[in-house]
Amino acid sequence: MSRRELHLNLFVYPGGHHEAAWRHHGSDPARILDVEFYQDLARRAEAATFDGIFFADGPALADNVRYASRFRLEPFTWLSAIAAVTRRIGLIATASTTYSEPYNLARLFASLDHLSRGRAGWNIVTTGAPQAALNFGLDAHPVHAERYDRAREFLDVVTKLWDSWEDDALVADQETGLFADTDRIHAIDHEGPHLKVRGPLNTPRTPQGRPVYVQAGSSEDGRAFAARYAEAVFTAHQTLGNGQDFYADLKKRAAGLGRDPEKVLVLPGISPFIGSTEAEVRALHDEYNELTQPEYSLQLLHRMLGLRLTAEQLDGPVPRELIETGGERGNGSRFQVILDIIDREQPTVRGLLHRLAGARGHRVIAGTPEQVADQIQEWFEQGAADGFNVMPPGLPGGFDLFADQVVPILRARGLFRTAYTGTTLRDHYGLARPDSQYAA
Amino acid sequence: MSRRELHLNLFVYPGGHHEAAWRHHGSDPARILDVEFYQDLARRAEAATFDGIFFADGPALADNVRYASRFRLEPFTWLSAIAAVTRRIGLIATASTTYSEPYNLARLFASLDHLSRGRAGWNIVTTGAPQAALNFGLDAHPVHAERYDRAREFLDVVTKLWDSWEDDALVADQETGLFADTDRIHAIDHEGPHLKVRGPLNTPRTPQGRPVYVQAGSSEDGRAFAARYAEAVFTAHQTLGNGQDFYADLKKRAAGLGRDPEKVLVLPGISPFIGSTEAEVRALHDEYNELTQPEYSLQLLHRMLGLRLTAEQLDGPVPRELIETGGERGNGSRFQVILDIIDREQPTVRGLLHRLAGARGHRVIAGTPEQVADQIQEWFEQGAADGFNVMPPGLPGGFDLFADQVVPILRARGLFRTAYTGTTLRDHYGLARPDSQYAA
Ligand SMILES: Cc1cc2nc3c(=O)[nH]c(=O)nc-3n(C[C@H](O)[C@H](O)[C@H](O)COP(=O)(O)O)c2cc1C
Ligand SMILES: Cc1cc2nc3c(=O)[nH]c(=O)nc-3n(C[C@H](O)[C@H](O)[C@H](O)COP(=O)(O)O)c2cc1C
Repeated sequence: MSRRELHLNLFVYPGGHHEAAWRHHGSDPARILDVEFYQDLARRAEAATFDGIFFADGPALADNVRYASRFRLEPFTWLSAIAAVTRRIGLIATASTTYSEPYNLARLFASLDHLSRGRAGWNIVTTGAPQAALNFGLDAHPVHAERYDRAREFLDVVTKLWDSWEDDALVADQETGLFADTDRIHAIDHEGPHLKVRGPLNTPRTPQGRPVYVQAGSSEDGRAFAARYAEAVFTAHQTLGNGQDFYADLKKRAAGLGRDPEKVLVLPGISPFIGSTEAEVRALHDEYNELTQPEYSLQLLHRMLGLRLTAEQLDGPVPRELIETGGERGNGSRFQVILDIIDREQPTVRGLLHRLAGARGHRVIAGTPEQVADQIQEWFEQGAADGFNVMPPGLPGGFDLFADQVVPILRARGLFRTAYTGTTLRDHYGLARPDSQYAA
Repeated sequence: MSRRELHLNLFVYPGGHHEAAWRHHGSDPARILDVEFYQDLARRAEAATFDGIFFADGPALADNVRYASRFRLEPFTWLSAIAAVTRRIGLIATASTTYSEPYNLARLFASLDHLSRGRAGWNIVTTGAPQAALNFGLDAHPVHAERYDRAREFLDVVTKLWDSWEDDALVADQETGLFADTDRIHAIDHEGPHLKVRGPLNTPRTPQGRPVYVQAGSSEDGRAFAARYAEAVFTAHQTLGNGQDFYADLKKRAAGLGRDPEKVLVLPGISPFIGSTEAEVRALHDEYNELTQPEYSLQLLHRMLGLRLTAEQLDGPVPRELIETGGERGNGSRFQVILDIIDREQPTVRGLLHRLAGARGHRVIAGTPEQVADQIQEWFEQGAADGFNVMPPGLPGGFDLFADQVVPILRARGLFRTAYTGTTLRDHYGLARPDSQYAA
């Protein structure tokens, strides 16, 4: 077996992952919609031999855009513009199985994979933001189980669409005049409870065959879905123990379904605050936290936990007993992560808000480059991670610190590649190219 | 008033517009999915100071991909990759009001406009290919009138979405912590017969406010739609007389609706076969026609006219009496263009097939550079066109001939710009940037 290798993605977020990052002097709000800013970031991530860059997404405006840079960069257009200025780094777009038409979505991914020569990945979500429903003719977000039900059918449909042209169906023989071998292009004739799609797709099969399937749900349904379909799993854990539990659970589920657990990469999020001394890190972290706005954070808390608190309660304890633990929200794994923080750390309301400000429930690692590298190595070697989704608190500076100071340590320790060995995202993740299910 | 100026778009088509172009030695089928091929073409069109490049689209596979390069390049991804390597040329994407979700489509265009700094245009179609219906859960393509009915409502919805952030809603003031002025971000609360969309869009208003509205339907419904909404109209005419009739009709309709007719540009398609002598042009044209495949062309004839003919009938007359003129198809303006060719020119079946092979009913101008420039000037000055959608028979060679040999003549005659004077597609077309309808 070849040496196990760490995988690193850069999770791009307008302004940076810390909710107040856009207010920090290291950020330039004037460039928040400037594609060259993001192209440049992608180039730096490629120079650091990252596996991929990742764009989150949701088809609705967040409620709290008054205080934070919570608009959305549409992933397909943005990643296509990034593909044009990079050659190796993977391009992972979030897209919803609830609010997309499978034929249209299959085309966008096929095209991203063609034009990037095999670098597309799909972060498959059922959409977290319930207000999206109102933008799509619905009165309410479909319930959790129904969303996952449609997601499974959706995945089946788009997989068939990506397989609908066999690899050698495009002939383009100038001599004989045969452009495409239509015997190798297949209608998919899908009719299911949620979707009816005839196919075939209107584009030849792509360099990777299919985009890499990434998944980011951690509920029971989400894990079952990931275990069956995902090739990489984004997740959020605060403690090594929780990370190990999730990791072991997911690998076991995948193996139970007959899959090779090594082909299901577990990639927790980390938000690294980096400084040359612990005091410097603490000061930096405080700087960011002082820029947070309680109005925003209290809204976020309401959305995430259903808790309605006021500014007067900021320095008191979190009223744990008021948090509703049943119902739809209770299914969310992020919800559980936050409950655990409250129970474990017993923070004040302000303390909790600062904890969440870093990366919305993802793990913040504050330390020197060595300390950050140690944490990464520990999780990687102790069965909690195959790599990480890196969520810099501020961009671009937060990424540069990681690339310049942490990556060299990881390389020196033999944990992370020093050069790309392949060209596609599948290559970087060590995943085989799937055959078309229609191939004889 | 400033001098009237010719507008030119390059209509990009995989392989070129002549149906057999991909078989010609001037074509390289291996590059038919190579984004750099198209980026390079866009760079050349920008060097020739074209107003825009244009991608057609439809969410279904054509029936006749066996013989011709009739797959589809997804316009948003492809044009975003092109935006990344160009700075001025407009980027016009075709998208369907029948088979898109307005929220998703509004985001794609907003993003294309942001990342290209104001170069997006939307060719609004209701989708020609009826088989698309089967890829979207429907049993049949909605009838013509219903498609246009939805198109009008769709346009209203996406326009409101693009207006939903007023221009100054994005504040991003690091000092005060106000990221967006939510008093200037508006729910659209649309509820109509076809669509229900709350909004607002999840992205700030774009450089052009809205993409340029282009339209390509020429039926009665199509013209009425164009007269009300379109800022540029793509159309197909074979004779100056027909072009003049259409031009006058459309401008009159627009004026009748209180619009400035100069702000509705009429841009017929032309497919230029260019050679240094008439004999050379004829030889080139013959070379292309000899590469056509009757199986393909007969299928196309069946699809366009409902005529089922065999190879034995190729050298006989077109059986005009067998063409069904009523029904859905009869609504199509392209249908009428072809009927006129048959009535006017009385071609053999093969002759008609060769006529259509050039550009599917668009006008083929075969001639020397001077002759092509003369034709362009005549239509431009005789009230048939404000410019043209240039459809080179073969790519890239057919475009290079036009750019190198026809464009200098048009410039020397003072008809066409020698440099861009603005930066957005609206600038190139002489169109004002619209205010948000929500602005006070
Ligand atoms: C790193 C990461 C990124 C995520 N990105 C998105 C996103 O972009 N859009 C979204 O709707 N949900 C996103 N999610 C949330 C999950 O998709 C969410 O949990 C899901 O909608 C509900 O699944 P669950 O209940 O199985 O957890 C993300 C989660 C993680 C861990
Ligand atoms: C230059 C040009 C380009 C066109 N491109 C498309 C296209 O990409 N997709 C499409 O469905 N229809 C396209 N059309 C066809 C019209 O949209 C078609 O006529 C419409 O679907 C029906 O409208 P009508 O009946 O009003 O003509 C194009 C037409 C012209 C003139």
